[in-house]
Amino acid sequence: MSSTSHSAESHPVAANLERVLPRSALLTDLYQLTMLDAYLAQGMLDQAVFEFFVRRMPENRSFLMAAGLEQLLDFLENLTFSATEIEWLAATGRFSDRLPEYLSEFRFRGDVYAMPEGTTFFADEPAVQIVASLPEAQFIETRLINLIHYQTLVASKAARCVLAAPGKLLVDFGLRRAHGAEAGLLAARAAFIAGFSGTSNVLASAQFGIPMYGTMAHSFVQAHASEVDAFEQFARTFPAGTTLLIDTYDTVAGARRVTELVAKLRPLGINIRAVRLDSGDLATLARRVREILDGNGCEDVGIFCSGSLNEYILAQQFGDDVPVDGFGIGTHLDVSADAPYLDCAYKIEEYAGMARRKRSTGKSTWPGRKQVYREFDAGGGLRNDLVALADEQATGRSLLEPVMRGGKRVAAPLPLSEVRAYAAAELAALPETMHDPSVRIAYPVEISALLQALATRVDHAFA
Amino acid sequence: MSSTSHSAESHPVAANLERVLPRSALLTDLYQLTMLDAYLAQGMLDQAVFEFFVRRMPENRSFLMAAGLEQLLDFLENLTFSATEIEWLAATGRFSDRLPEYLSEFRFRGDVYAMPEGTTFFADEPAVQIVASLPEAQFIETRLINLIHYQTLVASKAARCVLAAPGKLLVDFGLRRAHGAEAGLLAARAAFIAGFSGTSNVLASAQFGIPMYGTMAHSFVQAHASEVDAFEQFARTFPAGTTLLIDTYDTVAGARRVTELVAKLRPLGINIRAVRLDSGDLATLARRVREILDGNGCEDVGIFCSGSLNEYILAQQFGDDVPVDGFGIGTHLDVSADAPYLDCAYKIEEYAGMARRKRSTGKSTWPGRKQVYREFDAGGGLRNDLVALADEQATGRSLLEPVMRGGKRVAAPLPLSEVRAYAAAELAALPETMHDPSVRIAYPVEISALLQALATRVDHAFA
Repeated sequence: MSSTSHSAESHPVAANLERVLPRSALLTDLYQLTMLDAYLAQGMLDQAVFEFFVRRMPENRSFLMAAGLEQLLDFLENLTFSATEIEWLAATGRFSDRLPEYLSEFRFRGDVYAMPEGTTFFADEPAVQIVASLPEAQFIETRLINLIHYQTLVASKAARCVLAAPGKLLVDFGLRRAHGAEAGLLAARAAFIAGFSGTSNVLASAQFGIPMYGTMAHSFVQAHASEVDAFEQFARTFPAGTTLLIDTYDTVAGARRVTELVAKLRPLGINIRAVRLDSGDLATLARRVREILDGNGCEDVGIFCSGSLNEYILAQQFGDDVPVDGFGIGTHLDVSADAPYLDCAYKIEEYAGMARRKRSTGKSTWPGRKQVYREFDAGGGLRNDLVALADEQATGRSLLEPVMRGGKRVAAPLPLSEVRAYAAAELAALPETMHDPSVRIAYPVEISALLQALATRVDHAFA
Repeated sequence: MSSTSHSAESHPVAANLERVLPRSALLTDLYQLTMLDAYLAQGMLDQAVFEFFVRRMPENRSFLMAAGLEQLLDFLENLTFSATEIEWLAATGRFSDRLPEYLSEFRFRGDVYAMPEGTTFFADEPAVQIVASLPEAQFIETRLINLIHYQTLVASKAARCVLAAPGKLLVDFGLRRAHGAEAGLLAARAAFIAGFSGTSNVLASAQFGIPMYGTMAHSFVQAHASEVDAFEQFARTFPAGTTLLIDTYDTVAGARRVTELVAKLRPLGINIRAVRLDSGDLATLARRVREILDGNGCEDVGIFCSGSLNEYILAQQFGDDVPVDGFGIGTHLDVSADAPYLDCAYKIEEYAGMARRKRSTGKSTWPGRKQVYREFDAGGGLRNDLVALADEQATGRSLLEPVMRGGKRVAAPLPLSEVRAYAAAELAALPETMHDPSVRIAYPVEISALLQALATRVDHAFA
């Protein structure tokens, strides 16, 4: 791997790069605008509380890791309708005349409480809580879910990979099969938070300061008259250190060619740092390649694997006895292939001071404004969580923290390295049984007695 | 459903809206840039042929539908490195001094051959073919796959939904759980091509002229003192026609309230067009709701269903005897939940006039520049495909067509409605056995004898 001896990823010129995430206020569902129009017609502008939570854990997840809050806050701080957007909406003929004027002044002026990015959490726990006027709190639903859902999905998947391959270098390779450009960018970010070392994605590196990694493609080898010619040319172009892809024709023969090339180029000060394996029985091949490298004076050449990898394969096929230094994880990470979505929702829990509850079959919610309290054992490990009303007395750490007041952040964004360190501490506090990706562990999340009683009362109040 | 009596989605002001898809040349994998640097060092600038294809069909797919070409051509026509991007790359210290100068002049000047959007295709068939100088053809790999993979994935999923629910109105509801904003936008487009009637996504409507649809959320009902109050206020705000969501508290009770409201508001000229069901046993509830509506003078009120729907549920639970007029399909569509990625690749097949072949275990390619020929039966249905060398004599329709020459499109983009009509014809030509989403049908794709012979020759030429 071309690792990051240089860290120009955080070079100041990055600040001048094109902003990539769209901020268009039209990035929403039509019904947000029709509901907004109806709220205006009725003067329903009182304060509402909405919460984002996951209804049910996916079958293959014992925990989730919150991510995406930074992009949500950026969206909320910059949310405005442009004159062109308002003109276009008016031209659809779908809305009342009062809507364009309201939209021209529209801003998000509410408060946000949220679990910090990197926090581990579970079903039924609000991870983001919005307190704002009903139209504002309602309107932001679509993009809020869109941003929080995806990064949480990928951070959770990436955290499983990190736990399945302790001490290994993990790199995001997923941009090409991510669902669009934004997915590729945000997946690189979410994976880095969860403990990945970097990404192949150049724009993610430029935008977020994430270390970037890269090797070579099979086409590079194929375009040359011979594999060894390709290897030598690439090594000479990047004398400080390269990773050579050795499986285009025959992995074992490729490894032998690398040892001969190292013997030839090392005296010239040209450094071949690693080889990459991308097909076949990777663990078996890695052992064979390690033997060939070690037997020919290439003990310092690392082995990096890629190719349809995921946390199950890491845990099952790459134990401590398999001599692999790192892994590139692409498609399975960026699309969270074994659980490509979370059953999550953003629901109204209170309006005008009264708790509200949806009772739809299989989709009922816990009403009222809530807080999540977490208790730890003596060693700092997770013991249990309690979902309670926000004004209840309860012990434990409060997971929802104020992050925005009146539409403004309460603090500058943390450096991503700090978010990543916090996430690592969160993973360290998980029960060790959750490290095995194939086993689903249930974690105790209790609903407070007062909250349960409130639900019953609300059920009798609304029909 | 607030359907589209108005078609201001295609209003001219849409042209002034913010461009949404990022065009940054940094949206790539690092190794594309290091390989490019190495090609420059060696003067390897000869013509290359690369092809995009799917290696293996996903387990649950009998066919695929090509989509995303329009966004690819837009990307290729506008691909440049900005001064800031070049400065940032230079500051990483990873590249030679020759790279910045080359990048400042970099354009895609090659030719593109592709299956038109909406074409059905199968594994092993090149769907996009690039003929360009090696650095250009190589560099575009990441974004090419990123754009073609995702829209093809969603168009294929959407086409299955269309075949599973003939004659029903299908609407994309997936933005919130799509993997980022771009995924939501492109999913709406791909689904529309495949036969969906529209989307809830306002920006997709503005950008692509796709009809938009919307109803109301549960929170709207919950924010009101009573369900009937919410229904009446919404209907009065949109007298031309509304869809009321009736499952927040009790679906059957909600249906009864709607009939009473229709009786009250119809004399005032206020039109309730449909009800939406979003939870519970939807088919059973739809029958019950239909009885209630029909029994109370609401024969003209339609029934629309949503909630974790996919093509399997449509085919199995919503036969002709279930009185549902349309479906909103969200998460399962936008993430292609049962097959969230395609095993696709973009591989070099020829360089400097010589065919090339990758032989990696399980990932070998067919070498050389190719064409796909399709034969039909007397009724116009698909009979078999042949993958052959581009200069072979073969019968049948050629699926790869020239779409770009020297970096310029050969024709203006087709209106999306024409692409959609073509896609419908493509679906009509599929074997009827492929309409059942639960059955995997194998389709005959032959590899020509000359192509097989070339592969053997290439295997002996490279190692």
